Amino acid sequence: MNENTSVALRLPAPRPAQQSAAEYLRHGQTPFFRLPMADFERPGAGPYAGADAVLLGVPYDGGATYQPGARLAPYHVRRTSAFVQPFHPFHEIDVFGTLAAIDGGNVAIPPFDPEIVRHLVQTEVARVLAAGATPFLVGGDHSIVLPALRAIASRHGPVTVVHVDAHHDTSDGEVWGNDFHHGTPLRHALEEGLIERGQLHQIGIRASLGSADEAAFGLEYGARVYPMDEVVAHGVEGIAAEVRRAVGLRNVYLTFDVDAIDPAYAPGTGTPVPGGLSSREAIALLRGLAGINLIGMDLVEVAPSLDHADVTCHLAAHLLYEGLALAALRLA
Amino acid sequence: MNENTSVALRLPAPRPAQQSAAEYLRHGQTPFFRLPMADFERPGAGPYAGADAVLLGVPYDGGATYQPGARLAPYHVRRTSAFVQPFHPFHEIDVFGTLAAIDGGNVAIPPFDPEIVRHLVQTEVARVLAAGATPFLVGGDHSIVLPALRAIASRHGPVTVVHVDAHHDTSDGEVWGNDFHHGTPLRHALEEGLIERGQLHQIGIRASLGSADEAAFGLEYGARVYPMDEVVAHGVEGIAAEVRRAVGLRNVYLTFDVDAIDPAYAPGTGTPVPGGLSSREAIALLRGLAGINLIGMDLVEVAPSLDHADVTCHLAAHLLYEGLALAALRLA
Amino acid sequence: MNENTSVALRLPAPRPAQQSAAEYLRHGQTPFFRLPMADFERPGAGPYAGADAVLLGVPYDGGATYQPGARLAPYHVRRTSAFVQPFHPFHEIDVFGTLAAIDGGNVAIPPFDPEIVRHLVQTEVARVLAAGATPFLVGGDHSIVLPALRAIASRHGPVTVVHVDAHHDTSDGEVWGNDFHHGTPLRHALEEGLIERGQLHQIGIRASLGSADEAAFGLEYGARVYPMDEVVAHGVEGIAAEVRRAVGLRNVYLTFDVDAIDPAYAPGTGTPVPGGLSSREAIALLRGLAGINLIGMDLVEVAPSLDHADVTCHLAAHLLYEGLALAALRLA
Amino acid sequence: MNENTSVALRLPAPRPAQQSAAEYLRHGQTPFFRLPMADFERPGAGPYAGADAVLLGVPYDGGATYQPGARLAPYHVRRTSAFVQPFHPFHEIDVFGTLAAIDGGNVAIPPFDPEIVRHLVQTEVARVLAAGATPFLVGGDHSIVLPALRAIASRHGPVTVVHVDAHHDTSDGEVWGNDFHHGTPLRHALEEGLIERGQLHQIGIRASLGSADEAAFGLEYGARVYPMDEVVAHGVEGIAAEVRRAVGLRNVYLTFDVDAIDPAYAPGTGTPVPGGLSSREAIALLRGLAGINLIGMDLVEVAPSLDHADVTCHLAAHLLYEGLALAALRLA
Amino acid sequence: MNENTSVALRLPAPRPAQQSAAEYLRHGQTPFFRLPMADFERPGAGPYAGADAVLLGVPYDGGATYQPGARLAPYHVRRTSAFVQPFHPFHEIDVFGTLAAIDGGNVAIPPFDPEIVRHLVQTEVARVLAAGATPFLVGGDHSIVLPALRAIASRHGPVTVVHVDAHHDTSDGEVWGNDFHHGTPLRHALEEGLIERGQLHQIGIRASLGSADEAAFGLEYGARVYPMDEVVAHGVEGIAAEVRRAVGLRNVYLTFDVDAIDPAYAPGTGTPVPGGLSSREAIALLRGLAGINLIGMDLVEVAPSLDHADVTCHLAAHLLYEGLALAALRLA
Amino acid sequence: MNENTSVALRLPAPRPAQQSAAEYLRHGQTPFFRLPMADFERPGAGPYAGADAVLLGVPYDGGATYQPGARLAPYHVRRTSAFVQPFHPFHEIDVFGTLAAIDGGNVAIPPFDPEIVRHLVQTEVARVLAAGATPFLVGGDHSIVLPALRAIASRHGPVTVVHVDAHHDTSDGEVWGNDFHHGTPLRHALEEGLIERGQLHQIGIRASLGSADEAAFGLEYGARVYPMDEVVAHGVEGIAAEVRRAVGLRNVYLTFDVDAIDPAYAPGTGTPVPGGLSSREAIALLRGLAGINLIGMDLVEVAPSLDHADVTCHLAAHLLYEGLALAALRLA
Repeated sequence: MNENTSVALRLPAPRPAQQSAAEYLRHGQTPFFRLPMADFERPGAGPYAGADAVLLGVPYDGGATYQPGARLAPYHVRRTSAFVQPFHPFHEIDVFGTLAAIDGGNVAIPPFDPEIVRHLVQTEVARVLAAGATPFLVGGDHSIVLPALRAIASRHGPVTVVHVDAHHDTSDGEVWGNDFHHGTPLRHALEEGLIERGQLHQIGIRASLGSADEAAFGLEYGARVYPMDEVVAHGVEGIAAEVRRAVGLRNVYLTFDVDAIDPAYAPGTGTPVPGGLSSREAIALLRGLAGINLIGMDLVEVAPSLDHADVTCHLAAHLLYEGLALAALRLA
Repeated sequence: MNENTSVALRLPAPRPAQQSAAEYLRHGQTPFFRLPMADFERPGAGPYAGADAVLLGVPYDGGATYQPGARLAPYHVRRTSAFVQPFHPFHEIDVFGTLAAIDGGNVAIPPFDPEIVRHLVQTEVARVLAAGATPFLVGGDHSIVLPALRAIASRHGPVTVVHVDAHHDTSDGEVWGNDFHHGTPLRHALEEGLIERGQLHQIGIRASLGSADEAAFGLEYGARVYPMDEVVAHGVEGIAAEVRRAVGLRNVYLTFDVDAIDPAYAPGTGTPVPGGLSSREAIALLRGLAGINLIGMDLVEVAPSLDHADVTCHLAAHLLYEGLALAALRLA
Repeated sequence: MNENTSVALRLPAPRPAQQSAAEYLRHGQTPFFRLPMADFERPGAGPYAGADAVLLGVPYDGGATYQPGARLAPYHVRRTSAFVQPFHPFHEIDVFGTLAAIDGGNVAIPPFDPEIVRHLVQTEVARVLAAGATPFLVGGDHSIVLPALRAIASRHGPVTVVHVDAHHDTSDGEVWGNDFHHGTPLRHALEEGLIERGQLHQIGIRASLGSADEAAFGLEYGARVYPMDEVVAHGVEGIAAEVRRAVGLRNVYLTFDVDAIDPAYAPGTGTPVPGGLSSREAIALLRGLAGINLIGMDLVEVAPSLDHADVTCHLAAHLLYEGLALAALRLA
Repeated sequence: MNENTSVALRLPAPRPAQQSAAEYLRHGQTPFFRLPMADFERPGAGPYAGADAVLLGVPYDGGATYQPGARLAPYHVRRTSAFVQPFHPFHEIDVFGTLAAIDGGNVAIPPFDPEIVRHLVQTEVARVLAAGATPFLVGGDHSIVLPALRAIASRHGPVTVVHVDAHHDTSDGEVWGNDFHHGTPLRHALEEGLIERGQLHQIGIRASLGSADEAAFGLEYGARVYPMDEVVAHGVEGIAAEVRRAVGLRNVYLTFDVDAIDPAYAPGTGTPVPGGLSSREAIALLRGLAGINLIGMDLVEVAPSLDHADVTCHLAAHLLYEGLALAALRLA
Repeated sequence: MNENTSVALRLPAPRPAQQSAAEYLRHGQTPFFRLPMADFERPGAGPYAGADAVLLGVPYDGGATYQPGARLAPYHVRRTSAFVQPFHPFHEIDVFGTLAAIDGGNVAIPPFDPEIVRHLVQTEVARVLAAGATPFLVGGDHSIVLPALRAIASRHGPVTVVHVDAHHDTSDGEVWGNDFHHGTPLRHALEEGLIERGQLHQIGIRASLGSADEAAFGLEYGARVYPMDEVVAHGVEGIAAEVRRAVGLRNVYLTFDVDAIDPAYAPGTGTPVPGGLSSREAIALLRGLAGINLIGMDLVEVAPSLDHADVTCHLAAHLLYEGLALAALRLA
Repeated sequence: MNENTSVALRLPAPRPAQQSAAEYLRHGQTPFFRLPMADFERPGAGPYAGADAVLLGVPYDGGATYQPGARLAPYHVRRTSAFVQPFHPFHEIDVFGTLAAIDGGNVAIPPFDPEIVRHLVQTEVARVLAAGATPFLVGGDHSIVLPALRAIASRHGPVTVVHVDAHHDTSDGEVWGNDFHHGTPLRHALEEGLIERGQLHQIGIRASLGSADEAAFGLEYGARVYPMDEVVAHGVEGIAAEVRRAVGLRNVYLTFDVDAIDPAYAPGTGTPVPGGLSSREAIALLRGLAGINLIGMDLVEVAPSLDHADVTCHLAAHLLYEGLALAALRLA
């Protein structure tokens, strides 16, 4: 590709899956995980044809109630994800060699109208699904899970949701004068029937609440809540095993709010709650889900302006990688 | 309160305990936990009358030997504590609905004379006690625990002290030319008889020492030390249970030095020691003390200038909240 | 107020204007400039009656196109403004002794609907004006100047606007799918006739543009633009003198976007543009406007999460102080 | 390009020069200034054919003597350069509409052998020149200017060099056991005859020296040094005018070390020296060179790990933009 | 030593081992752990004669592939190590009273030639060994372990290596055009026969890999790998016990890459990998090795420019202290 | 000194004045400006005999009213001062070759008793003076100037003081319950007659005041105040010339509070005031004093915990260097 590099860099044979480190060094660009970009100019089949998985940035944080900034996460997670290699040391699988994953760019969002944002996210996720690929969304704030689930449910019917978070995200939210924001998406998803009854699994919940009612909402829909102290008591492997048993062969959507993780490991988030998962537990939790039928994932609430030395962005890249590995394991 | 907010914000019915998020947003001020401020102008009963608990800032760090800065903690912990909600997810109690807590402002300290500082802290804590309320001090450095204990003991007699810290705080201290500073308060408290013999419980101790003598001092007074490796071996729940048994129905004062916690979780402190508690363990430790008869608490050594993204200040607010919950549980 | 402080702190005689440093230390709260808070409970005259000036926080950044975060500025500017003293060293006037200024709290904003935000800001500014006071808004992003000007113009008719900024803020904005955001408020204000023809004075403009048209828009309305290089050539005193002559006795609204200032002095802002004013020039510019008839001011686009060591927040407090001094000079 | 964006984003007609903000938002990638990437796969003419200017990242800092980190600058300057718009507010020219500029990716450098690095940089710059385009290098440390000048001189013969820096960069360097590093490139360039006698113009020099000899070296080759105090006395416009007269119609290579600028404006650099240019002066200096025949430029020594809130990276992007504008002005 | 300090500071009797805090305060210098500096002027026996242990800084990071900066670690770890006291709270031993440790200064490295660097490091470590002392190297990047092992093996023959790291450090490395860098030192050490077959113990390994082959390389030499998930499953005490049994009475070299530790605890490192050891586990791991025959140690990859509030540098000092304690225990 | 360095580093002939960069690299220690340390063990003449200038750290910040932290400045300024070279580019003098300067260590201060601190500082400065050397104090907070002036005046009689600062430092201070702190030293110095009448020159003053009286205090003693706006109007060279004329051949003590400089250039300080000197002006101001008879200097109020990328500490080192150059010029 570049004759002069033959002097010193040994460029590997072409591989469609992921650029080598040297290629990445040469290109200077930062698609997620050094993956191929979707070809937006391609006639016919559309930009996602042939992909097993499409990573989509959603640079939107208009749903944040406290500290915004998650809109910039897709740029920084792309940059840090370049340092993840294809061979997974635990599952012992070549993730990008097994799974044809591409960077689908961002959902191009006008940041000022939440309703249009929801429409655009839903449309784009639907397009990924229509191409037969699994969507991986990189938020953005957590409000984007609602349109993602609308697209998912509109294709697959009510689904199973594994929800890792410090918060229930089922609050009433009317105190804010509008009940569509990053504290309410799962309330809406439950109310709209996007989630199969008894198939909302909430892990890591620990934030203080406005009232006892907040905790009660999901229970009416059969939600299974694993608050943080239960996670500690049973261990993440135990929780993962229980979830795996409960979901069986169902279609599973995984929504991961980075504030599930303790602020020590993930300071770059807008609504931090002390007492969360360690990075190790978060990774082990996802590894423990191996075998589930993952049909979509999001990783949300990374706020780079509050990060330090990219620790949150590096962690976010690794959590996405664990999700991609789950998808690769199904293909392998 | 503000007619135009009726357009969009649904203001809850008045509650004396804690401002709603919307009220907080409107007032723009940051009393601890959005609580009412003490009314310093009130004639008669004094500013703390009717309160179950009074939070007092102590903006003093003249007792620090290494990195100062804790004097600014009350301002920042007030700010971050606004994001704590009333309903406690573990104890399942409405903390501020149960406990009439107020923000008593700061002890107004002239920063240059440690002796006057001790006098003023003692006087103010005594005033809180005289009003029948439980004092919660937000330091400031750890030297403030001595005058607090003087006030406590002068009312209740020698008390039980649960002391969470990386350091014994019983050093000789004369190397510094003065033996009243943040490394010596418990030595003085023991020598002055403010602590009941056998009722000093020190948890999380791990710092390297000048000599073996330092570790020995407290033992002469029957102190029970749980060094960090023992905490790890038994688990914080185990330690909490043992402490709870040992203190029984005694009056307990809880002094929490944030450097008990590992610097990863609490970088904003002046004398960090690697290898400490996680935030989760710190919270679980306090939860494990449910049932003790808490008559006072301090949270000290938070240094905001060394913090990042407020992680230490958010944690400090949550640790105070756990202490307040212990007091609320007694009332409930 | 607090008997024990008589031991060591010499509390000054009561002054209605600003708490003394000792009072501030005692109260622990952080109203703007240690000023009295508006009394929201007061029956009858309303919270702003009797005030010459009302400082209002506007914790909203839903109009930001690049990096958000300005919604948190009111909390941090309150904190840093506590360190500003009443006697102005240049104008030699006791600002808070002359001008009865109060902290009016925040406009309580539901963050998710820009239209309601505009309504609420306009209503609250109108209320300040109705009380006969001068509003000083602490943003928040620059989109809030539009509702402020609507309230102003609805009371005073089309006004003179002195606009200090790196950007024209008259862009088309439709690229974002919505033309109400922080890049367009002055376009709307001109189109709605809120600004007197020929009385928009834009100082410090220097950002690169999408096209030549952007620079041309204001000119159609007779805007006078002082781009940064002209400011350098003439000096801020020269510019101030020219503006002062041009505005004469007119009612002047001052809108100050902190990104007018170079990122070295004001790193805490969402859309930084190198090559701006120094803090000294910004202060001198406002001092040079002494004598104008100031009827309102805002200071916007301070983003604390991007700040370092509070330098931007300290500067913001000083710029507001210069504006308050202009108002005080009119009263003196 | 993306049907759903038609809902809300008004995508402009295709323009080859620079992506619109909306396109950038959609693509999620960060080529310099949102420019087209070189097409490395293109058969025949090579990746740079048809370009007027090629931006090349050089992620190498193996020549740094104090704090490294400049190797990461190309990634971060790409990111911040996305916020620069095409229309230049001072020269009033559509920079990217006039100049066909592309992002040529990085020189793919094995970081461990300075000699190979020099070979690769020289080869790649030669390739850009062979394509008839002007190279713009984004370092990396300042050692890369030597191979760049070798390529330049090998095509154009000895050239004029305008060198903006805090240091002479002509030190002996043998103290480090090797005389090829970021403190010596201009010594080598002079010794190798790459610079026309009397045509080295050094602006902003101010660092303390090992001995008087260091300052004397360049003078033997007729270098014209404008130390910082002379820059202050004459003003950057004065210096620019004098340089412009001296260089006349010669081919000029511009090498800009970001440490020429004061650390307040450019903290993200490895060898900071207080007392430098302001960002405004740096920009005005480059604007003052309008009319010179620019045949190449580099911007070096940006170290993102030492930056804060991207202020240095934003400034670096703007300085490159000023250089691109100089090239565009020649074409216009 | 300083008469005036007698006024207020009680200086302890002279102790050769470590300055008291007061002496440190007086001297203002920062040798590692307040230890005596080697006397480079001493005639005859050489600077290390009589020492049991010599701490050597190696300010070199020319072997880093991603983020450099480790060259500055020796300066910052010296500073933070001043806060470690002599009496070890777990082993209950006066470390510096037992072990005659000195600060040997830095290996004076010309940063531009990796081959000379390797030569100098090897020579200096050999000199420490020749003086009968145990070397403790403070990197610098991990490439320095190769010359250290060459010196060790040239004295002791093939040794046992306990290697704590996130990475195998046995990669092929030719992708970088040179196979001597911080990702390959143990490959070379194995190939050169510096490590006894079956006596490479790798703990904490967890990074994603280029291919399955990378993990396989060490296994051919009988390396025992404890990946992170096995460390979690068995606990660090379990791993330490197993290693201790496996090494028996052999000579053990300990090489500790700070990226073995999770980025939350050690953000200041160039190649962070989420999911690592906690600081507590890292300390317990070293404590668990008590009884091994430690003949050398390094602590590498601390990058201060990426650190926050010195947390990584404080941790690095404590890890070195644990290594010194292991050496002291052998002497006791 | 170190045989192996002969392989690659060319060590210069011994020079008593300042270590070479290579020597510094080898020693790993950080005395101010790589100067020799005072020999505290030397019998007879005392540690300062033979020195022309003695740099003393004063790690004390017990006089700070707002943000402390200056106690750590001596450690960090030592580190950054290592990067200053001997040959002064403006005065064209080998500063350390001309002036026999040494690092006198720190004044060993027990941090808890301001009166003892004053005693110790005075004693140590007197000792430097007794040795015939010029003291250069590196604070610490500004309260240390009082004991320094006491020592100076006790040797030389009332002196001339050039005071560069944002504040008058002549406040009443009794609001703090004690009138010895960093806001009052010059009031005491004037009242105690340590400063010659009419020979207090205050430059850069700009902070807001509690009342008009504060500004008036110095005037009663004939102080000449150059507020910031006058400095801007006349230029620092003009001010320097006027001061130089006014002081003539008198003995001059220079006290430099780093908050005289704008927070953009010196964020690492406890009481920042926007609108100050640039680093360039500060340097030019000191250069403009060439010819004065400097008999002592301090540089105070550097707070490293608030600094970023060492910009304040690098600047502090350069300002001290300018003071040392003034002393060297007198000797040359």
